[in-house]
Amino acid sequence: MKIESATLLEITDALRAGSLSAEAIAQHSVHCHELHDAKLNAYISWDDDYLRLQAKSAAAAFDAGHDLGALQGIPISIKDMFGVRGFPLYAGCSNPLPDEWRTEGPIVGSMRRQLSVITGKTHTVQFAYGGLGINQHWGAPRNPWDAKNVRSPGGSSSGAGISLHEGSALIAIGSDTAGSVRIPASATGLSGLRPTWGRWSRKGIVPLAPDLDTAGPLARSVEDLAFAFAAFDPHISNTCHSYIAGLRKGHLSNFRIGVCQWLFDDCDPGVAECVEDVLSELESAGLRASSIEMPLFQQATNIFAQGGLHIGAFSSLIENELNDYKDDLDPIVLERLKVFLPCSASDHLFRKRCLERMARQVTEDFCGVDAIIGPTLPITPPILDDVTDPEIHLKANMKLVRNTNVASLLGLCAITVPVGLDRESMPVGLQICCPPLQEDRALAVALAIERKIGNPVDRLGTPPLLKT
Amino acid sequence: MKIESATLLEITDALRAGSLSAEAIAQHSVHCHELHDAKLNAYISWDDDYLRLQAKSAAAAFDAGHDLGALQGIPISIKDMFGVRGFPLYAGCSNPLPDEWRTEGPIVGSMRRQLSVITGKTHTVQFAYGGLGINQHWGAPRNPWDAKNVRSPGGSSSGAGISLHEGSALIAIGSDTAGSVRIPASATGLSGLRPTWGRWSRKGIVPLAPDLDTAGPLARSVEDLAFAFAAFDPHISNTCHSYIAGLRKGHLSNFRIGVCQWLFDDCDPGVAECVEDVLSELESAGLRASSIEMPLFQQATNIFAQGGLHIGAFSSLIENELNDYKDDLDPIVLERLKVFLPCSASDHLFRKRCLERMARQVTEDFCGVDAIIGPTLPITPPILDDVTDPEIHLKANMKLVRNTNVASLLGLCAITVPVGLDRESMPVGLQICCPPLQEDRALAVALAIERKIGNPVDRLGTPPLLKT
Repeated sequence: MKIESATLLEITDALRAGSLSAEAIAQHSVHCHELHDAKLNAYISWDDDYLRLQAKSAAAAFDAGHDLGALQGIPISIKDMFGVRGFPLYAGCSNPLPDEWRTEGPIVGSMRRQLSVITGKTHTVQFAYGGLGINQHWGAPRNPWDAKNVRSPGGSSSGAGISLHEGSALIAIGSDTAGSVRIPASATGLSGLRPTWGRWSRKGIVPLAPDLDTAGPLARSVEDLAFAFAAFDPHISNTCHSYIAGLRKGHLSNFRIGVCQWLFDDCDPGVAECVEDVLSELESAGLRASSIEMPLFQQATNIFAQGGLHIGAFSSLIENELNDYKDDLDPIVLERLKVFLPCSASDHLFRKRCLERMARQVTEDFCGVDAIIGPTLPITPPILDDVTDPEIHLKANMKLVRNTNVASLLGLCAITVPVGLDRESMPVGLQICCPPLQEDRALAVALAIERKIGNPVDRLGTPPLLKT
Repeated sequence: MKIESATLLEITDALRAGSLSAEAIAQHSVHCHELHDAKLNAYISWDDDYLRLQAKSAAAAFDAGHDLGALQGIPISIKDMFGVRGFPLYAGCSNPLPDEWRTEGPIVGSMRRQLSVITGKTHTVQFAYGGLGINQHWGAPRNPWDAKNVRSPGGSSSGAGISLHEGSALIAIGSDTAGSVRIPASATGLSGLRPTWGRWSRKGIVPLAPDLDTAGPLARSVEDLAFAFAAFDPHISNTCHSYIAGLRKGHLSNFRIGVCQWLFDDCDPGVAECVEDVLSELESAGLRASSIEMPLFQQATNIFAQGGLHIGAFSSLIENELNDYKDDLDPIVLERLKVFLPCSASDHLFRKRCLERMARQVTEDFCGVDAIIGPTLPITPPILDDVTDPEIHLKANMKLVRNTNVASLLGLCAITVPVGLDRESMPVGLQICCPPLQEDRALAVALAIERKIGNPVDRLGTPPLLKT
């Protein structure tokens, strides 16, 4: 079995059939990491020995007939915003955060209970505050889709997608506030899911804006993404097999899709066109798409442009619990803070109430559709040298997060699915937004799309930098 | 059956047996109101006709064999912070709030579903922001325990307890942020419950500090309080009969009680002494009491003294959604705002995190006891003329809320039980604080105490102003 092209369902079956061992997967992870990480820079922390110890534990459990869950023996990378025993937690800073921040939450707890294999900690924008994936202290992971220019890998979970491209991890766990899971997934041609806020515990994650933060998975395909979601979600009791089988019952013609022009406005060359082409293809295959208006997207964006809920929450963290790290702040992060400061409690709480009101409005009838779609990112992942100036950076970042952020601000769940390449031959993602707690529906739509348009590898090809 | 001395269990039984009609109860309510309200001033809105219509509906349902719940035909007053169709919502202002604030939430929804009889809207401190029960625009309800001096009825649910003393209502619904249910209950010799924050929906209540606000019932005895809690609580599926029967299984000797000196410090004459006497009495009857230290009470109080979560939340409401009411603010309320303003989002959110951390700490082992007890109010309900000066008022208010507020700030549930009279012959309440969601335990302790020391009427006598 070729691990790099096998699905997670196939891998878990093989592990249970004894035709593949957790230790062989671990060996593959180490090999991939050695082969690629110097070039791709996915990880801030990596530990061969620890990885092998975990694999040994998973293998020993299989040998003893213990099946502790779908993640047993599966290598998973974790964004360095999560506390994990045995690894320092930098959260993108020069120095590790104090020990109390390393307490493990339920996401990591679930990995341990299922005997999965933590490959290491992946790079993040400092304190997850930015979408371009740049980190002054640690550099940016390399986006493998451009062999010539050094382009943004997306962020803030900047190393998450890259760890999947390396092959060292088969699932990557990131965190998403304004889009930090979906952005790197889209920018690197992968699938990513933002669960509904509150569905997954935020414990054990360094907060950015707790009213918006959530953990979320990235995966190599929608099917793997559904696998990861079912394996981590505390509310799903199905096995991954039966969960995915259930999702597969949804056909394209079952779904009414709202196409919101606002999400297509003013995109970089080839982005909107690519999504429109895919849409035509899907409509030919039975998808029922209609044009919808969603004025709340702009209204929510206006609140974000004033500082949203990030600025109060993040400044509170830095000024109080992490004041020692203030001098260590990435100039870009500091710049973003300064643009907005000071923020009164009155304004912060009013914005929160406004967003809650809008969230209720948007979910009331959801325009009579099952899902709202559009491009995940309005722009091509930029060449990093083009966005070094703070003002240009801020502008690019604001545009980059536009479409993912509205789903966050309005309390929706959302998935990005890779659907093609833009004029710069960079990946284009299609974002599927569904009402709160309708992850099943979003995944069913995404899966139906993937089955129609094919696996990302088939459709987008291999990233140039990974061609041997 | 004498409605004024019957328990709610007896009344509901009589309603179902046909020996008492909802219309007779309504007639009794109207009669009591006519007899007392000119003197006591419990209500801001009262409507004889509407009350009778509701009673007729409850009676017609009984006639048709429909039992829609324990509250069917029971007269209940509602604090004028709740939206109720058919009644204006003043929230203590001179003029009613705009219509959108009158949307009914689940508490009122539950009353309607059970065909209870809404007697009217009771007086409140403006925007529930104060514990002394004073309202510049509408005056204060009269505390019936002092026939000579006009004393504080407690607040902010200032009319709630008084509506029970009138006899017009058999349950009173208030809201509690720093103690606004427990304070008026204690000040008027009644029982009151603050449910755990988040257990009951806050929808349909004008917010003061949403992270602390909760609805809560006041009743004429602990048994009636348990009845009201079970009848309103969405998580209890027992009938009120079986719920109370379950609580009754707890005997005094089953409970380990923590006595926290901090709650007894610096009380007005006769207050601490009264609670200590009752404690001795209860210990002789088997209660296991031990002295505990609770430094978090002072730490939480320090955060409140800086403005807590009230100041950011309330100023945000007034500066944004209710800006038209700014000029209408009671001078005392305005004074409290000014003491603290301005508050940054950073400070507000830090306070919130600190309180959440403390709340986790306090509930971790809860000092190894089942409940923490102390006087509900450290002071005698003051003579209103003594607290007209804003500075004196603020100081008295701060002291008044001291003991109830710590339970709110630390996320506990808490009950006040009347246990005696102080040196001014004003009622003294015993507060029982339990960990989050342990309302059953708090009620079981309170019920065991009530059974030992007797019904409030037996123990405290009749309020002087109500003696004929």
